Amino acid sequence: MNLMDALTWRYATKRMNGKTVPENKIQRIVEAAQLAPSSYGLQPYSLISISNREVLQRIYQTAAPQPQILECSHLLVFAAWQNVDQSKIDEFIQLNAELRELSMASLQDYKASIEGLIKGMETPDAQLSWAAKQAYIALGFALIAAASEKVDATPMEGFYPAELDAILGLQEKQLRSAVIVALGYRNHETDWLAKLPKVRWPASKFLTNIA
Amino acid sequence: MNLMDALTWRYATKRMNGKTVPENKIQRIVEAAQLAPSSYGLQPYSLISISNREVLQRIYQTAAPQPQILECSHLLVFAAWQNVDQSKIDEFIQLNAELRELSMASLQDYKASIEGLIKGMETPDAQLSWAAKQAYIALGFALIAAASEKVDATPMEGFYPAELDAILGLQEKQLRSAVIVALGYRNHETDWLAKLPKVRWPASKFLTNIA
Repeated sequence: MNLMDALTWRYATKRMNGKTVPENKIQRIVEAAQLAPSSYGLQPYSLISISNREVLQRIYQTAAPQPQILECSHLLVFAAWQNVDQSKIDEFIQLNAELRELSMASLQDYKASIEGLIKGMETPDAQLSWAAKQAYIALGFALIAAASEKVDATPMEGFYPAELDAILGLQEKQLRSAVIVALGYRNHETDWLAKLPKVRWPASKFLTNIA
Repeated sequence: MNLMDALTWRYATKRMNGKTVPENKIQRIVEAAQLAPSSYGLQPYSLISISNREVLQRIYQTAAPQPQILECSHLLVFAAWQNVDQSKIDEFIQLNAELRELSMASLQDYKASIEGLIKGMETPDAQLSWAAKQAYIALGFALIAAASEKVDATPMEGFYPAELDAILGLQEKQLRSAVIVALGYRNHETDWLAKLPKVRWPASKFLTNIA
């Protein structure tokens, strides 16, 4: 399936049929998210992949009462760093030095730029919002990877982050759930949205060309 | 090129060679962004595609002094809605009714949900931040579409939004530039990043499985 066909095929699936997505497909979807770019390459977020039915049941009961939580195969939680402390920047620079075989000294400007960026974010909320935005790029990558595997995906913001964080123990890891994606297969009988056309603003409203 | 190859091939190009990207490729990249999902499908952002060299020169001089601005073929500006006022929600519901051939009455619950979501965002900043996050999903889609067309792309946050908004007249349209992407072709001679491996957190840090 070419990319444009995949993008047309996908939609935010409202009802899934409970079938399991093979692990190799899940791995490619996660890998796509992992390959997404981020500001300075910092990847200020983690991914939690949940297929445990008991945990999904708890999430459904207290954090996200949508049918896809129970009907999906896997639930991906994109969890943003609550804040970017110095130890994370240090660790990231170390990682760069190792993977690119560069000296720490040669990375000092890069490090200073990142420190300047973070320092410029005046409130903890600004850091979290910035981190969440980076996670949304990865969300886009995961959604396309899912579609290209013919796996349905439902991105969801409508959940209770504090409850979800509690179930997953994210607070202890200084993470905050930003957005979640149910992965599975559409239920052709029960999904009212499966047959409706996509709604998008016309190009005249969406796009301006300055040529 | 399959998706994983495209994701491995792409990187945030630091220097471009000035060659023009054919219009049909730009169109597919824009179309991919247009097909990205968003919260409630509202697409609270617009895209500005700039290939005019004078405008790019002005952007370079005052808003984004990076070489890619001058060396790219097209610059895409993802501009988020500054706020979501009632008229936009009304217009969106109207669009849904038309494209899905539904009565306005049948869309009342949907409309009320959107109104509730927006009302729950207490500050104008919260609305803008939410709108920008949606734009970042579309950014992810555009980046993958570019890679699948073998077009290089550099997403950039490091610019002066107020200056860019002024050049593009975005304030009058109640838009705010959220993130920009230079599209073009990598310069193999001058781009120091072209030959360096990608840096990503190891899976052990990035991913948690709850199976």
